[in-house]
Amino acid sequence: MKLILHSTIAFVAMVSICFGAPFKSTDKCGYSACNLGQPDKLNVHIVPHTHDDVGWLKTVDQYFYGARNDIQHAAVQYILDSVIPALVENPDRRFIYVEMAFFWRWWLEQTEDMKNTVKQLVNSGHLEFISGGWCMNDEGVTHYSSIIDQHSLGAEFLRDEFGECGRPKLGWQIDPFGHSREVASLFAQMGFDGLFFGRVDFQDYAIRNLTKTMEMIWKGSANLGEQSWLFTGILPRVYTAPSSFCFDYRCRDEPIKDDPRLHDYDVDQRVQAFIDAAHIQARSFTTNHIMMTMGSDFHYENANEWFKNLEKLIKHVNAKQANGSDVNLLYSTPTCYLYALNNANKTWTTKTDDFFPISYSEHGLWNGYFTSRPALKRYERHSNNILQVTKQLNAFSNITLRQAFFPLNEAMGVAQHHDAVSGTEKQHVADDYALRLSDGIDSALYVINQAYKKLLPKENRSPVVPNQFLCQLSNISECLPIEGQDIFTLTIWNPTIQPVQHIVHVPVTKYYTIRNPTGEIIFADVHQISQIIKNIPGRTSSAQLEISFQTSIPALGFNTYYFQAISEIEIEKTSSIEVTYNEACILQNQNLRIEFDDQGNLKNITNRRKNFTVSFSAQGFYWYTSFPGNNSGPEFQASGAYFFRPLTPTPLPVSNTRNITCTYSNVSQKASIVYNEWASQEIRLYDGANNVEMEWIVGPIPIDDNFGKEIIMRYDTDIQTDGLFYTDANGREIIERKRDYRPSWNYTVYESVSGNYYPIPSRVWIKDNQRQMTILTDRSEGGSSMHDGSVELMIHRRTLYDDSQGVGEPMNETAYGKGLVICGKHFLIIEPPENSALYHRPTAQQLYMSPISTYALPAVSYTDYSNNFRQTWSALTAQMPYNVHLLTLDQLTVKVFLIRIEHYFELHEDDTFSKPVQVDLQFFFDSVGKIMDLTELTLSANLPLNDMNRLIWRTANDESSYSKPTHSKASLTNTIVTLNPMQIKTFQVTLE
Amino acid sequence: MKLILHSTIAFVAMVSICFGAPFKSTDKCGYSACNLGQPDKLNVHIVPHTHDDVGWLKTVDQYFYGARNDIQHAAVQYILDSVIPALVENPDRRFIYVEMAFFWRWWLEQTEDMKNTVKQLVNSGHLEFISGGWCMNDEGVTHYSSIIDQHSLGAEFLRDEFGECGRPKLGWQIDPFGHSREVASLFAQMGFDGLFFGRVDFQDYAIRNLTKTMEMIWKGSANLGEQSWLFTGILPRVYTAPSSFCFDYRCRDEPIKDDPRLHDYDVDQRVQAFIDAAHIQARSFTTNHIMMTMGSDFHYENANEWFKNLEKLIKHVNAKQANGSDVNLLYSTPTCYLYALNNANKTWTTKTDDFFPISYSEHGLWNGYFTSRPALKRYERHSNNILQVTKQLNAFSNITLRQAFFPLNEAMGVAQHHDAVSGTEKQHVADDYALRLSDGIDSALYVINQAYKKLLPKENRSPVVPNQFLCQLSNISECLPIEGQDIFTLTIWNPTIQPVQHIVHVPVTKYYTIRNPTGEIIFADVHQISQIIKNIPGRTSSAQLEISFQTSIPALGFNTYYFQAISEIEIEKTSSIEVTYNEACILQNQNLRIEFDDQGNLKNITNRRKNFTVSFSAQGFYWYTSFPGNNSGPEFQASGAYFFRPLTPTPLPVSNTRNITCTYSNVSQKASIVYNEWASQEIRLYDGANNVEMEWIVGPIPIDDNFGKEIIMRYDTDIQTDGLFYTDANGREIIERKRDYRPSWNYTVYESVSGNYYPIPSRVWIKDNQRQMTILTDRSEGGSSMHDGSVELMIHRRTLYDDSQGVGEPMNETAYGKGLVICGKHFLIIEPPENSALYHRPTAQQLYMSPISTYALPAVSYTDYSNNFRQTWSALTAQMPYNVHLLTLDQLTVKVFLIRIEHYFELHEDDTFSKPVQVDLQFFFDSVGKIMDLTELTLSANLPLNDMNRLIWRTANDESSYSKPTHSKASLTNTIVTLNPMQIKTFQVTLE
Repeated sequence: MKLILHSTIAFVAMVSICFGAPFKSTDKCGYSACNLGQPDKLNVHIVPHTHDDVGWLKTVDQYFYGARNDIQHAAVQYILDSVIPALVENPDRRFIYVEMAFFWRWWLEQTEDMKNTVKQLVNSGHLEFISGGWCMNDEGVTHYSSIIDQHSLGAEFLRDEFGECGRPKLGWQIDPFGHSREVASLFAQMGFDGLFFGRVDFQDYAIRNLTKTMEMIWKGSANLGEQSWLFTGILPRVYTAPSSFCFDYRCRDEPIKDDPRLHDYDVDQRVQAFIDAAHIQARSFTTNHIMMTMGSDFHYENANEWFKNLEKLIKHVNAKQANGSDVNLLYSTPTCYLYALNNANKTWTTKTDDFFPISYSEHGLWNGYFTSRPALKRYERHSNNILQVTKQLNAFSNITLRQAFFPLNEAMGVAQHHDAVSGTEKQHVADDYALRLSDGIDSALYVINQAYKKLLPKENRSPVVPNQFLCQLSNISECLPIEGQDIFTLTIWNPTIQPVQHIVHVPVTKYYTIRNPTGEIIFADVHQISQIIKNIPGRTSSAQLEISFQTSIPALGFNTYYFQAISEIEIEKTSSIEVTYNEACILQNQNLRIEFDDQGNLKNITNRRKNFTVSFSAQGFYWYTSFPGNNSGPEFQASGAYFFRPLTPTPLPVSNTRNITCTYSNVSQKASIVYNEWASQEIRLYDGANNVEMEWIVGPIPIDDNFGKEIIMRYDTDIQTDGLFYTDANGREIIERKRDYRPSWNYTVYESVSGNYYPIPSRVWIKDNQRQMTILTDRSEGGSSMHDGSVELMIHRRTLYDDSQGVGEPMNETAYGKGLVICGKHFLIIEPPENSALYHRPTAQQLYMSPISTYALPAVSYTDYSNNFRQTWSALTAQMPYNVHLLTLDQLTVKVFLIRIEHYFELHEDDTFSKPVQVDLQFFFDSVGKIMDLTELTLSANLPLNDMNRLIWRTANDESSYSKPTHSKASLTNTIVTLNPMQIKTFQVTLE
Repeated sequence: MKLILHSTIAFVAMVSICFGAPFKSTDKCGYSACNLGQPDKLNVHIVPHTHDDVGWLKTVDQYFYGARNDIQHAAVQYILDSVIPALVENPDRRFIYVEMAFFWRWWLEQTEDMKNTVKQLVNSGHLEFISGGWCMNDEGVTHYSSIIDQHSLGAEFLRDEFGECGRPKLGWQIDPFGHSREVASLFAQMGFDGLFFGRVDFQDYAIRNLTKTMEMIWKGSANLGEQSWLFTGILPRVYTAPSSFCFDYRCRDEPIKDDPRLHDYDVDQRVQAFIDAAHIQARSFTTNHIMMTMGSDFHYENANEWFKNLEKLIKHVNAKQANGSDVNLLYSTPTCYLYALNNANKTWTTKTDDFFPISYSEHGLWNGYFTSRPALKRYERHSNNILQVTKQLNAFSNITLRQAFFPLNEAMGVAQHHDAVSGTEKQHVADDYALRLSDGIDSALYVINQAYKKLLPKENRSPVVPNQFLCQLSNISECLPIEGQDIFTLTIWNPTIQPVQHIVHVPVTKYYTIRNPTGEIIFADVHQISQIIKNIPGRTSSAQLEISFQTSIPALGFNTYYFQAISEIEIEKTSSIEVTYNEACILQNQNLRIEFDDQGNLKNITNRRKNFTVSFSAQGFYWYTSFPGNNSGPEFQASGAYFFRPLTPTPLPVSNTRNITCTYSNVSQKASIVYNEWASQEIRLYDGANNVEMEWIVGPIPIDDNFGKEIIMRYDTDIQTDGLFYTDANGREIIERKRDYRPSWNYTVYESVSGNYYPIPSRVWIKDNQRQMTILTDRSEGGSSMHDGSVELMIHRRTLYDDSQGVGEPMNETAYGKGLVICGKHFLIIEPPENSALYHRPTAQQLYMSPISTYALPAVSYTDYSNNFRQTWSALTAQMPYNVHLLTLDQLTVKVFLIRIEHYFELHEDDTFSKPVQVDLQFFFDSVGKIMDLTELTLSANLPLNDMNRLIWRTANDESSYSKPTHSKASLTNTIVTLNPMQIKTFQVTLE
């Protein structure tokens, strides 16, 4: 019922218009609609705007409707209701809108008349969409796959409803808590001409303000050259109006009182105050144009109040020009301000690093959020995994059910918001995000079932296809629907374009024989589920056993495993399991050897192939005590949802002793190390594996001492790092980090620990000349290298104070009345530096696009099953290049598909794979049809690349941002595409 | 400069359209625009409305513009900006607007297009003006002259701009703190068909709620019969929406969440809650119609929010009719609800008393405000005096400068607001009201000067007419501009139609000879100004002397007195002054004898003509201690700006001893009685006077004991009153009061003192068979008779606690760093009951329409002056009837005038004057021209009486409210008008 509703609404919004002829704009919008002011004046671009969080203190529903105004007054429906007539009323007015998650909801409720009105406003440049993603995504903890998706979701809506005039021209990241170079690069590839944001480090800001370098050219990629460059501007007051000039209901600033009859007539003072504010702002900028953002969070609920007073201000300030004032106010947009800067023919300084982490003040650093809400962070990553699999299944089964899983697309778009996956929302909102993802997954599961109904039956067979279901609690060894079942199947889809070695874990209440796709009964371990897992609050499963086996899943395809119960007596001891307790032990396979002492300490990891060892002086769980401040001044800054501030710089070990149990079977060797009742890890080495799987379970974090705690997993090695470490940006390019250092300015250290914490969306490494230890994470975490040879990742946190950045709650997650327990994984790769990319690049892709298991209860014998159903299938018939990744495969209409492929190695990472690569697009479609037509698009898929003409900027070193178009001229006869390192290409493909 | 601006703007708004042909409405507005619902349903009239205080916590300017939103968020400009487009957007919507002080300001700022839009909305019944006064006037402390004026000011604006569709059909007094029978009577005479209000006594409410008598026919006058009857309804929730259904920004109620995708979808619960609320409300009313006021203070700043949710509510509630629900929601107005009741053909209970005082709770009575801010209350009455004189001078001088004194008209309109003259506003707002009146008086003074430039010069003379100025501080014996002058003139205008005996007091620094209009040097007393006066904080005059003389000023005319300084040596001792200190003394003239003992106690007043004595057991100042509560419950209710609650029922004398000084001169005999350093009175008897003038000076009220105090003047006599006393309503009809009693219900006494306090706008009396003591006040005061023979008037108050009705300040007025000092007067009339009206009726009229003195510095000799200037003049050539009062004389255009005349005696008050009277209207215009045309109008002058067709109602006693039109058929040949007791007639007069 609920699903049907979702789908119906989704249909309304998301019926795609596919690309035929290139866009043509006959309207005056974009740059052609710009007023560029007066050449001899200080032109103040007055930019009316609203910043509408897609959830924060309230849920996205509550923000849209204006529910729960007891929490925060905010009601987006009324903002749009109000702005549109205000724009119609006075054609001088301009407005920008950013968050499509809200605009789309509003649009669904409008009449055709209203839609036409809005279209006219858009086509005449009065209403301009800026950035235009589903939300204003976070930059620290998001994955590039989902950033691209969420921007494409918004862009698609805008393209379908508004055409070229609706295409956003720049990025608008005014609120996120730090800025990623990768986001700049992606935005450049989306065709944006610029980016504005509001938050940088206060030290950085002060210097830029002084040196007039608030605006720059950001070189977004170390691999992609000019096509990744993005003009970037820092806003002077985050995104607010000059002091006393906020005319929104929620501000208490005075209106412009310009009726001379008034006892409080104040025009002269107000005009002078504004002229002063303009002159002060102009000191930090280099042209005779400045931009004033006139708005804030959820402003313009009554647009008239803002506009009416702005017009009085404009009128009276500009009237002073007759008396020689040099200040000229004009309604404008960020796009037009950008265009004015571009027209100024200046050169600009450049930036090659990123804006992480940023300090709000001496002791308030926006990097607690790199870890906040680790469960939500993982669930978001998992949901994307489901989403990408669903897209693939929808495409390969050719069922054209894209609209049916729109709820998951939408929930993922919402989840990218800078107060969603960031963890900086209120608890009830975090719960709502999770519910949305869950509802989205439900909608996806419907499509997965429809797809498997096409893909599973053998040709010419019409069996009843059993319902496929997910066991999403298998991370706590729980899958209730199969409990007690005598027969079930497990079908695993591999969404990568390489076959993948996969370890299957199935929690069961019985013993089973398992048949692989060719009908052979396979070897499997049967373990007792550990007491640690069984003690996790909320686990209701009665399963005591877990079956594990290793298998290989075909590229872009599936395998099915058939489970049939056997009595315990029938058990053939297929695996001989050996166990040691609190003894020194060694885990070892073909590639790696891991040594522990009898105290449970990890001592060495040896790469047996390359014959070197990394020694560990320490490894395990530590905590920082959260600073318990009242935020009454920088020195009283508390650690909280946004900020990480330890009370002292030295973390404490969670315990001084630990118990170690080592277990050996055919499938795996593992060391289970219990630190105390709330912290344990299991270090696993699978047969043939090139990495070490470290599963940790942490929580409930104790707070009975009334101190918050931030838990890290630390790896102290003998690698000679010289202060350097390396972290990724949004799962793609790697940035070198140096302890107590910022590349862009002379950095003063106020927080010795927190000042070195960086976002780790997917990986971190340290290295010396011979050895590199790369740690891959299963979600975003904060991390650092606090001393040479050491890496630490913050995996869980529980604080008891709000850090006063608005959320109004400590970061104190609970479940079942206790602090939340988090399970997670790290993957260690111990390789020489020159060999590391070969392993961490594909492993990282496999982590975010893992095989997805679905279960079913066919209730038929294996013979019946195998007669009727395919048990293995792959969409690919050829082997694909190792350095190509299928980023997106999405069926738009019956014959039209969107595909994104990428080269996922950086330059110079690997002797073999850091080279350009060619791939034939037809290979991806062999199972569905022959490519008839191809159009290369911008990254956000809203413009043929042929039509992209970005503004050209010049650097202070006289470089030009102009990049020769390199879009593929692939055609029916030539579907072979060349990808350079880190290049993503996006195509609309039409099949015959 | 400021005056010019005032005038310019006034011209825009107030160019009158005079009445020619009767109005014809061709549009669908008023009753013809009403949706009367469904006969078999409970019809819920949804009435969107905003209640916009014309000043309260903020000034009227601040409320209009939305300034000082730190005090209270309220911005009327945006309300109207917002409501109009919302009405255009959906023709189902309806809205009412009430306060013309705001609407007029807004109207001035609108384009012609917008004005046309609004006119269309008015002509189609979508926007309806309700009540339509300049403000929603207070009912307790206002004077009928100003109530009529403020309603006429609004009505004139509406008539001029909107014609018949703009004419309000009913009274809407939703917020005032008690309700006056006189207001009901005046509203009936304005042509209103009904009245709704929100506040009644909680005991009264409970009973009416139970007995379904929330709606009734109020017999507004004991004299005027059916033409004063008014259908009256009490609103069920003051004027708010049912709980949880307030959809304004400032409410935190939930919106209607009707998108089924929402996690918080709530339509079913909300619909049921509203249906329940409708059924509960319906229990208290008798028809199948109920009205729900959907709005509150300054609501609809974003009208869309209200309307959008109301429409969802209407849609979903009405949808339940398909399932058998009997609830039918419809957009409506109070007018249409009234019409639906009228159509119901029911009979209604009647009411003949008033709604004063009303209790909010057991211990919170809305009657402190009867006295709060006594200085403002007096200043407002004084300003009206100036206004009426200015109107007359403008008319008789035929200078057509009505627009130039519009600021005073406007300021008086504003001052009638129920948080203005009531004294229940914040201090800064009270100051602003006074400033507005002062600015208004400045504008009037300009007109007074222009008028005297026409009236003063003798025919065929063109002297330089010296500037006339007011000495408004003469109540503290200060007139700086004449200090040290050798020559000045004093011109006194008498605005009544009878010659008036007037006592002139002129504070001077020199001795003067004074010539009367015939050139004779007149007798005058020269007194030393008392130390009490000289000590009043803020007095800056160096005058030590005060000249006093008695004179008679011609009816509707003036006298000029010429003052010429003489050296002290030249003084002819014209008056022999005798003084006694602390001795028993007697003041006596032809009519009265007043006896004091040597302790300063007033003992007896004897009416010498009628030969009876009233003996006093006590007379003088007492205080009640203000209850110092925190308002956390009824028992902790504090005394404050609104509420009077004494700590104990027994007032304390301000001192146990007093000093008395008796002074005798030819002009007056007086006893000056000093109680302590902050309370004194002077009891004066003038030659020939029929009343005793009691001037009191009180303040600063001491609060060093941390107790607020409420000061009363008490008169304890031997009159046998049997619990009865008599108070006026708005300066007109008298209502009998009985201690600890309410005529309408079985009254439970919770507050023995406060429960007996009534408004005394102009007079109070007690009487027995032979004797009546009438006390006239110079402003509104609260008062009572707490035991037989006693009258007390609360003359000043200073409280230290807010009483939690919103104003947020104690009633603690200060000036010059000290508690405010108040000077005031009472006038005692001691006559037999049958003889009292003869004196108190004209005296009361002379008090509110006192002679107005203006001074000038002609700098010419008396001979020159008398050669060039008229020194006496009257507009009247014939003597006018004693029982007729000229209420209004206002020149609209060169030849068109508005005149209101009234019979100001009640039935049976006086053997002679309580009879119908005839008066020739031509007499009033003899000095300006001959009447060519006459149209009798409704009281608010916005409709020819011929066209007035009020709805007809029937009482439970089967009386009909139908009243035969009695409008005067006066014509060119017959300008004689008959007035019945208490009848007011309003005419538009056109001269040849």
